[in-house]
Amino acid sequence: MTAEILCIGTELIMGQILNSNAQYLSQALGALGISVYYQVACGDNPERMKSSILEALSRSDILVTSGGLGPTEDDLSKEIVAEALGLPMVEDSQSLDAIAERFGRMGRPMAENNLKQAIFASGAEILPNAHGTAPGCIVTKGEKMVIQLPGPPRELIPMFETSVAPYLKARRQGSIVSRYLRIFGMGESDVATAIADMLAAQGDVTIAPYCSLGEVQLRVTVLAEDEKTALARMAPVIRQLQERLGSVIYAVTDNARDSMVAHVAEALLVSGQTLATAESLTGGMVASKLVDIPGISAVLMEGLVTYSNEAKVRLLGVSEETLRLHGAVSAQCAGEMAEGLRARSGVDIALSTTGIAGPDGGTGEKPVGLVYIGLSTAQGTTVKELRLSGGRDRIRNMTTLHALYQLLEWTKRKA
Amino acid sequence: MTAEILCIGTELIMGQILNSNAQYLSQALGALGISVYYQVACGDNPERMKSSILEALSRSDILVTSGGLGPTEDDLSKEIVAEALGLPMVEDSQSLDAIAERFGRMGRPMAENNLKQAIFASGAEILPNAHGTAPGCIVTKGEKMVIQLPGPPRELIPMFETSVAPYLKARRQGSIVSRYLRIFGMGESDVATAIADMLAAQGDVTIAPYCSLGEVQLRVTVLAEDEKTALARMAPVIRQLQERLGSVIYAVTDNARDSMVAHVAEALLVSGQTLATAESLTGGMVASKLVDIPGISAVLMEGLVTYSNEAKVRLLGVSEETLRLHGAVSAQCAGEMAEGLRARSGVDIALSTTGIAGPDGGTGEKPVGLVYIGLSTAQGTTVKELRLSGGRDRIRNMTTLHALYQLLEWTKRKA
Repeated sequence: MTAEILCIGTELIMGQILNSNAQYLSQALGALGISVYYQVACGDNPERMKSSILEALSRSDILVTSGGLGPTEDDLSKEIVAEALGLPMVEDSQSLDAIAERFGRMGRPMAENNLKQAIFASGAEILPNAHGTAPGCIVTKGEKMVIQLPGPPRELIPMFETSVAPYLKARRQGSIVSRYLRIFGMGESDVATAIADMLAAQGDVTIAPYCSLGEVQLRVTVLAEDEKTALARMAPVIRQLQERLGSVIYAVTDNARDSMVAHVAEALLVSGQTLATAESLTGGMVASKLVDIPGISAVLMEGLVTYSNEAKVRLLGVSEETLRLHGAVSAQCAGEMAEGLRARSGVDIALSTTGIAGPDGGTGEKPVGLVYIGLSTAQGTTVKELRLSGGRDRIRNMTTLHALYQLLEWTKRKA
Repeated sequence: MTAEILCIGTELIMGQILNSNAQYLSQALGALGISVYYQVACGDNPERMKSSILEALSRSDILVTSGGLGPTEDDLSKEIVAEALGLPMVEDSQSLDAIAERFGRMGRPMAENNLKQAIFASGAEILPNAHGTAPGCIVTKGEKMVIQLPGPPRELIPMFETSVAPYLKARRQGSIVSRYLRIFGMGESDVATAIADMLAAQGDVTIAPYCSLGEVQLRVTVLAEDEKTALARMAPVIRQLQERLGSVIYAVTDNARDSMVAHVAEALLVSGQTLATAESLTGGMVASKLVDIPGISAVLMEGLVTYSNEAKVRLLGVSEETLRLHGAVSAQCAGEMAEGLRARSGVDIALSTTGIAGPDGGTGEKPVGLVYIGLSTAQGTTVKELRLSGGRDRIRNMTTLHALYQLLEWTKRKA
C-alpha cells in the first residue's frame, strides 16, 4: 500500500510556517508499514487543491490530507474529496452537537459557517477532535482511502494517534509492531556501514535508520499475525543489531519520539540522585533541556551559567591559579567547576561544561571545538575531552548531548 | 511568474528529516516577488522524480529543485531536467577542476562518480558550491526556468543567496526590495484585523504577515525601477503600519531571518551594560538564547538556574520569609531574585523569571501559566506579571520571549 500526503495551507507555500505535519505523517505511516511516495503542499485555492487531490488519487492507494477543514469558504477539502470519489455530502448530527457544545462551553455563539464542519461524505468514518472544532474523517471508495486531518499539529497528532493508527491497524491482517534503537556516539554512515548487510538483506523485519544532530535511531518494524509473534520475530534482529553496534545503543523503546534527555531524567528520577550543573560554553542549554521534563524539579537542584572567569571563581571556587596556568578551557578548570559546584550545592552529581564554541577565540593549541565536560560525584571527578567540528550552534548542541550522555552513563553504571 | 519547489530525497518522504528547504525557498522566492504554488517532495526514484519534474514544468514557470545532485546513480535530477527540456548534457571543465581541487585539498582520491557532478544541460548557468562538491545550475528553455540546488541547507542557502537571488534580480526589470517589521505583544489575528484594509487594498507595495511563536513579522515588498525608488515607495506604507500598530513593532530590518535575541544582544553590546540572569521556570533558556550570539561573553556575566527554593535563598539571598508568605511564584520573590542577583554579581542589569510551567503545580489562586519577570537596575526593580496559556513548552518559550523583550525595552529606554 502506497500513501501520499497533501498538506493544504497558503501559510505553507508562502513559507510562513515549517511543514512539520509532512514529516510526522511520513514517520507515523512508515511505522504502520505504509510507504509514502509523495508529499505535496498547496495553498487554500480550490482549483489547485482539486488538481492535487485528483493527482494523488490517480497514483496512490491512500491519501492523507492536513488542513482545509476549517469553517471558512476556502476550506473545501472535504467537498473536493467527496466529489472526486462520487459521494454525496451528509450532515453528522453527533459532530454538530459536539461543535455546538464546544461553543457553549466557551460562552460564544456558533457562527453559521461552523455547520460546515459537521458535514461529511456519505459513509465517512468521523474522527473526533479533542483539541479543536474541526473533526477529521476517513472516506473510502473501492481501493482508495482518503484520511482528512486538521492542520494544527496539536490537533493532527493526537487525532492520528487516537483514531487513525488504530483504524489502519484494525483494517490490516495481523499486527504491525515497531521498536526504536537509540544510538549515540556513532555517525549515521558508520552505523549504515556496520549493518550494511542487514539493511540490504532485510525481509519481513524492516530496519530504517533515522538521524538527527548527533543521534541515530534505527526503527525495526515487523508485520505478523499478532503482537506476540511480531515481537518474537523481531527479537533476533534487535539482538543482532545490539551485538553489531554494542554500547552505542543507549535505549530500545517503543516510542518514536523519544529523546536522550527523557532517558536521563527518568534515570535520575528513578535513582533519586540530585543534580546541579555549571555551564560555560553551553550557556544553560543542559539545564534548559532537563527543565523540559515535567517533575525534574525533584532532582535538578540548581544550574549555573558561569560564563565569565569571575563567576567561575566566585560561584564555583575555581582557583585563580588554575585559570592562570591552564585557562578556563582546560580539563583542570572543568574538574574544579564540577567539584566546587558539588561541594557548595550539596548535590549527588555535579556536571560542568567549558570549551570554545567559536566562531572566534580559537588558537592553535586550543582550537574552536575543544570542549571539556566534568562530572563530580562522591566516587570522584572525571573530565571528558571532546574535539568537535562545525559551527557555534552545532558545537554547543553536541556538547549538550555529550553532557547528557555522561549523566546517562553514570546513572546506568550506578544502577 | 509562478514557481514550484521540488525537494528530492528518500529521507524526506520517509520523514527522517524535516523539509526546511521548502520553507526557506518559499520565503526567499516570495521576497523576490515570485509566488510559489506547489511544494512537492519525492524520493530518489527516477520514475517518480521524472513524473514530478514533468508535472511541475507543465504548470509552473519556474521549477526550483533541491537534492538529487550527488555522485550516486540515484542522483539523476539534472539528466531528467535536460531530457524534459530537450537539451544535451555537456561537461563543464571549470566545475571538473573545482571538484578535483577540492578532493586534492582533502587528500582524498576523486571517485569516478564525481565526474557526474561536472556535467550539465547545454547552456546551463553553473552555480559554484562553496560548501560542498555538487555545483548547482540554472537551465532555461523558452519560458521555462529550472533552478537546481544541492540538498543540504548549509549548501543550498548560501548558493541561493550568492548566485540565485542576484540572477533572478538581474533578469527582472527593476529592483525588488523587502523590509521586515518585527512585532511582539500582539497576536497574528489582531495584527491582521488592525491592518485588514491595508492587506485587502495592497497594490504594488505588498504586505505579507509571517508568524512564529509569540512573534509576528510583516514583510513589505515592492518592485520599482531601482532600489532608491523602491524604498521611497514603501516608506509611506511602513509609516502607516507603524502608526497603526505603534510600539508593538520593535524593529524594522532588511533581514528576513532576524530574531529578537539578536536585537537584545546588539543593544546590550552597544550600550556596554552587563547582564546576569536568575531563572526558575525557564531553567536556563534565557541565558542559553543569549549565548547563541557570538561575542555575548563581553556583557553576559553569569546565569543562574535557581530551580529549588534552597538555591533561591543560598545563591540569590531571597528571604525565607518571602518564600513562606508569598511562595516562590510571586512578584515579591521575582523582585528579590533580581535584586539579590544584581547585588551579588555586580552587574548593571539583573533579570529573573519564576512561574508555573505545568502540567502540574497549578492551584486556583496560582494557575499554570502564572509567571513573574523581575528586572533590577541602578534605577530600581520592576516585576512584570504574565498569565500565559498553553503547554509547558509554550509557557517556557513565551516567558523567555517576554524576558528578552523586557531587556530590549530597558536598553531602548536607556538609549
